[in-house]
Amino acid sequence: MILRLGHTELFVTDLEKAREFYVDVLGFREHDSDKQHIYLRGVDEFDTHTLTLTKNSYSGLGHFALRVSDPEDLERLAYHHKKLGIPYTRVPDGAEPGQGASLRIVEPNGHPIEFYHDMQQIDIFDETGRLKRLPMRFTHTDKGIPPLRIDHVNLRVASVDKALNYWRDELNFSVSEYVERDGETFAAWTRRFPGTHDVALVKASGAALHHVAYTVQGPAEIIRTADLLADAGYQDSIEYGPGRHGLSNAFFLYIRDPDGNRMEIYTGDYLRDLDMPPVKWTWEDYSTRGRLWWGAAHPERFQETRPVNQNWL
Amino acid sequence: MILRLGHTELFVTDLEKAREFYVDVLGFREHDSDKQHIYLRGVDEFDTHTLTLTKNSYSGLGHFALRVSDPEDLERLAYHHKKLGIPYTRVPDGAEPGQGASLRIVEPNGHPIEFYHDMQQIDIFDETGRLKRLPMRFTHTDKGIPPLRIDHVNLRVASVDKALNYWRDELNFSVSEYVERDGETFAAWTRRFPGTHDVALVKASGAALHHVAYTVQGPAEIIRTADLLADAGYQDSIEYGPGRHGLSNAFFLYIRDPDGNRMEIYTGDYLRDLDMPPVKWTWEDYSTRGRLWWGAAHPERFQETRPVNQNWL
Amino acid sequence: MILRLGHTELFVTDLEKAREFYVDVLGFREHDSDKQHIYLRGVDEFDTHTLTLTKNSYSGLGHFALRVSDPEDLERLAYHHKKLGIPYTRVPDGAEPGQGASLRIVEPNGHPIEFYHDMQQIDIFDETGRLKRLPMRFTHTDKGIPPLRIDHVNLRVASVDKALNYWRDELNFSVSEYVERDGETFAAWTRRFPGTHDVALVKASGAALHHVAYTVQGPAEIIRTADLLADAGYQDSIEYGPGRHGLSNAFFLYIRDPDGNRMEIYTGDYLRDLDMPPVKWTWEDYSTRGRLWWGAAHPERFQETRPVNQNWL
Amino acid sequence: MILRLGHTELFVTDLEKAREFYVDVLGFREHDSDKQHIYLRGVDEFDTHTLTLTKNSYSGLGHFALRVSDPEDLERLAYHHKKLGIPYTRVPDGAEPGQGASLRIVEPNGHPIEFYHDMQQIDIFDETGRLKRLPMRFTHTDKGIPPLRIDHVNLRVASVDKALNYWRDELNFSVSEYVERDGETFAAWTRRFPGTHDVALVKASGAALHHVAYTVQGPAEIIRTADLLADAGYQDSIEYGPGRHGLSNAFFLYIRDPDGNRMEIYTGDYLRDLDMPPVKWTWEDYSTRGRLWWGAAHPERFQETRPVNQNWL
Repeated sequence: MILRLGHTELFVTDLEKAREFYVDVLGFREHDSDKQHIYLRGVDEFDTHTLTLTKNSYSGLGHFALRVSDPEDLERLAYHHKKLGIPYTRVPDGAEPGQGASLRIVEPNGHPIEFYHDMQQIDIFDETGRLKRLPMRFTHTDKGIPPLRIDHVNLRVASVDKALNYWRDELNFSVSEYVERDGETFAAWTRRFPGTHDVALVKASGAALHHVAYTVQGPAEIIRTADLLADAGYQDSIEYGPGRHGLSNAFFLYIRDPDGNRMEIYTGDYLRDLDMPPVKWTWEDYSTRGRLWWGAAHPERFQETRPVNQNWL
Repeated sequence: MILRLGHTELFVTDLEKAREFYVDVLGFREHDSDKQHIYLRGVDEFDTHTLTLTKNSYSGLGHFALRVSDPEDLERLAYHHKKLGIPYTRVPDGAEPGQGASLRIVEPNGHPIEFYHDMQQIDIFDETGRLKRLPMRFTHTDKGIPPLRIDHVNLRVASVDKALNYWRDELNFSVSEYVERDGETFAAWTRRFPGTHDVALVKASGAALHHVAYTVQGPAEIIRTADLLADAGYQDSIEYGPGRHGLSNAFFLYIRDPDGNRMEIYTGDYLRDLDMPPVKWTWEDYSTRGRLWWGAAHPERFQETRPVNQNWL
Repeated sequence: MILRLGHTELFVTDLEKAREFYVDVLGFREHDSDKQHIYLRGVDEFDTHTLTLTKNSYSGLGHFALRVSDPEDLERLAYHHKKLGIPYTRVPDGAEPGQGASLRIVEPNGHPIEFYHDMQQIDIFDETGRLKRLPMRFTHTDKGIPPLRIDHVNLRVASVDKALNYWRDELNFSVSEYVERDGETFAAWTRRFPGTHDVALVKASGAALHHVAYTVQGPAEIIRTADLLADAGYQDSIEYGPGRHGLSNAFFLYIRDPDGNRMEIYTGDYLRDLDMPPVKWTWEDYSTRGRLWWGAAHPERFQETRPVNQNWL
Repeated sequence: MILRLGHTELFVTDLEKAREFYVDVLGFREHDSDKQHIYLRGVDEFDTHTLTLTKNSYSGLGHFALRVSDPEDLERLAYHHKKLGIPYTRVPDGAEPGQGASLRIVEPNGHPIEFYHDMQQIDIFDETGRLKRLPMRFTHTDKGIPPLRIDHVNLRVASVDKALNYWRDELNFSVSEYVERDGETFAAWTRRFPGTHDVALVKASGAALHHVAYTVQGPAEIIRTADLLADAGYQDSIEYGPGRHGLSNAFFLYIRDPDGNRMEIYTGDYLRDLDMPPVKWTWEDYSTRGRLWWGAAHPERFQETRPVNQNWL
């Protein structure tokens, strides 16, 4: 069974600039790094890392990964994709630092993804098995927002209805809300975790990454994000918000990293069981109240997207 | 598959006094009522009610209910409890207002519970199927905290190790954290939802309810709870907190309704997959940092509990 | 000695629509009303009212009032304005409900103002002189943001340098910050209270009201303002923000009442003694970081203003 | 004219331990230090320092200082104290780093105080006179709460009525609220700034410091204070709260530094003009709702105080 979005890999062209942005300003915790990568997590996470920054000639989505509840699910997924005629690659334990064996595919809409079960956990016990400490949000040595945990990815696809054939019908993702426009589905929010979404699918010319979202404690931390970015000279990184989404109820700020990768700082969506029927928005309602509950327009550059990894398999 | 804690029923001796407390001061939304009941929910919930107040000669726990993902799970659970030798009662659709068929048992540690799948949902669509509105937290007609959604129940049991034989081993609840004391388990936090707990089990002389918890948006709403209660003359209802739990990281306030039923106003625990190993606390760590991360003592009356329904089946 | 901004009068064309906006949605406390007026205050104020809504054929500024520390200051101000050749009117005790004698002028830049000392206070004592209660922010019967207290007015003037001749040099207001543009003062924030401003002066074609500001507890209440307005169907009232000012450090949201009167919901400026030298902004710094610390542009309609009372004396 | 409380000097026995507490954990900004002193300020302050930690053989109050609006006020105060028969010492410009000339006395109730006008300001301009930046709360290099600015000192005196003869009648401090007990004044909150207090006076056996208070942005920062202290191993420093005062409406946490000096982290009192009549509390009201609006008791050690400087003149 697929449990949730587990981690993402973003391409960046300059690791040092990326570290300044993600670690020094936003307050991601750095687990490890090497010449090609920086491994980060939010302060409420038990996985050693949920965001990998990889040095690359272009920015965008390296891949994202979905955690399964049972190691044997990887076999079931391999079998299932074989039946669907979707090529996959098996990646052995340790090929990605801290991660067990995984199954990699390019999903039918063009996005590089993988399924995995085992992931290295942060060290919360001493040698005798006694708890040292839980990961705690408010530590006296931390700076930044800080981000709590990974929440979702937002993808562009050529056809949302076609994308749902895979995500909803094959992978059993539940649609929480969707937008209908001109007789087709314009956007759909899908999830395995009972929040509003793990993977959002929005119609565009083809596969692309719109944003990766991390949750924070509340609206105060979202305002703090903008204040911190402005203080550190990243005013151009503040793209859209803070605002309240109608769809999902969540409070948000969209920001851009030095390579233009967009991140949503996000808080406060609702929980709803996966078997519940989806909420439908008309285009009119969505465009006037769904995207921004407060009714205002969004900036032009919010439509820009980032490419996805062309060399995943 | 059991998904989560769904709702609770609390016994109160005076419905009008209870309404003033829960609706007028705390800001629960009242779905419906009759001469014997008031049906309430938090403002982020899609179920029409998650808290039923029932007039009774003594206060305490009427029952609590666990939602299953599939109607057929009720058959599986009936079969399973039969094998365990635990008597059950089948309750037909509508026997509880808004609720489908359910299976009622007194679990082996003495608490009245039920399993159900179908529950009436709030009306968010107009006649043409178009979304009227999502349940929104900040409405201009609301007063109170407001509470967002049900989170967990905290029970007293004669033996936590014995209780885990049922909750962990038979119902497949995952233990997130537990406390060891004098060679036995003193307390365990168990869950089917990936938060820290749906059902907490703490050692005492026997079956009893310690508290029911509802989540709020953040610490500001917890402070607001105390401010509202004091303003409305319920200073005696403010029992313990606000404070930060070490165990769960959550921020809390414990309050008492006019009948002495204890409610925890709760925010900010972490998420962790159900297959992860539990966190173990020694008694020393738990009593000095686990209960209250800030290290202070708790008031004597925090140990008081409420009886559970003696006439469930 | 002038102490602070005391209250304002806004013209509205429909009192019932205004009440819905200010009382039912924003949560101003209504002290009293008659056929022509509604008298309001914020929840932290001891004056019975600090905002008077007056029915009028056009919207805009009725007048604003400055409180003096000593009743005799009214005589001194009368003498001083006589010397300056500025006509004044003496208004007797009670001519404005709850207010003592006042001195009315149209200040040299065209704005209707008055000076007063005595103002009716809310009733916080019982018959025996014992405190009933302080005005408390969080009452269980209140809805809305709520606004705490009046903070400042923002005016348009034909020449800021000329306006400072009156406000700074004659009334002894202290300039906290100002903007220089093309060799003249473009804007100046002036105060008698040690916050950043009681009266802001900004260059335009002539006398006009830009906005009246009320403080709230913190950024959460500013977000709540937008959420409440959207919930009540006032999405068009949400004009600009939420955002952080560079100048003043304050967090803000600009909203419009049903008549187009602009209100700033405001929190978090700094305190600085009145004898301190002003902070100077270049136009470049002000337009890129001073107005909005986060660097973003403001919407076109934010430049619109409201007329001022043409029949004050 | 006395404007406000300007700064305090606290005695500490170990400067390094004090720096860890005040700078590394709480987030005070360190302006400067030498072998005997550390000079600190809150993040919203323009004075280079408002808290001086001085190495001493015992902990407690070194002195506190009141800012006057005019340098000539120092002469007037010297003359006035001479008439009162209170000895004073004149301290030249620079005797305290960054401070102009001052007048030192031991006030009639035994506390070491000084009056001053000039104080070094933080550097917010570049060489050409252009603003570099305002002191901003949310900088990406800061850790800690952070504290915003000094608010008040709370003193113990042998007789509050006698103390008011000096503070209210001679120094013209305004009483905002007071408590009557057994026919005398048990406590009085006095101020020159229009908040609730600069100097609080509470009956005890004689002169002593109860606490120094710094304001923070809101309740979230007060919770953060406890979280940060617990995280850094200072659980014993968390003494009382967080809670809401009835008197002043403020939200608070009392903490102890490594030497036992008590600090109140404070937010949200009201503003009221100095000429307004004081609010009177009976002992019954004060002890059940005034100290803590929520009605709970306070811990025993909250009565402990610190000595004051015995060598001030």
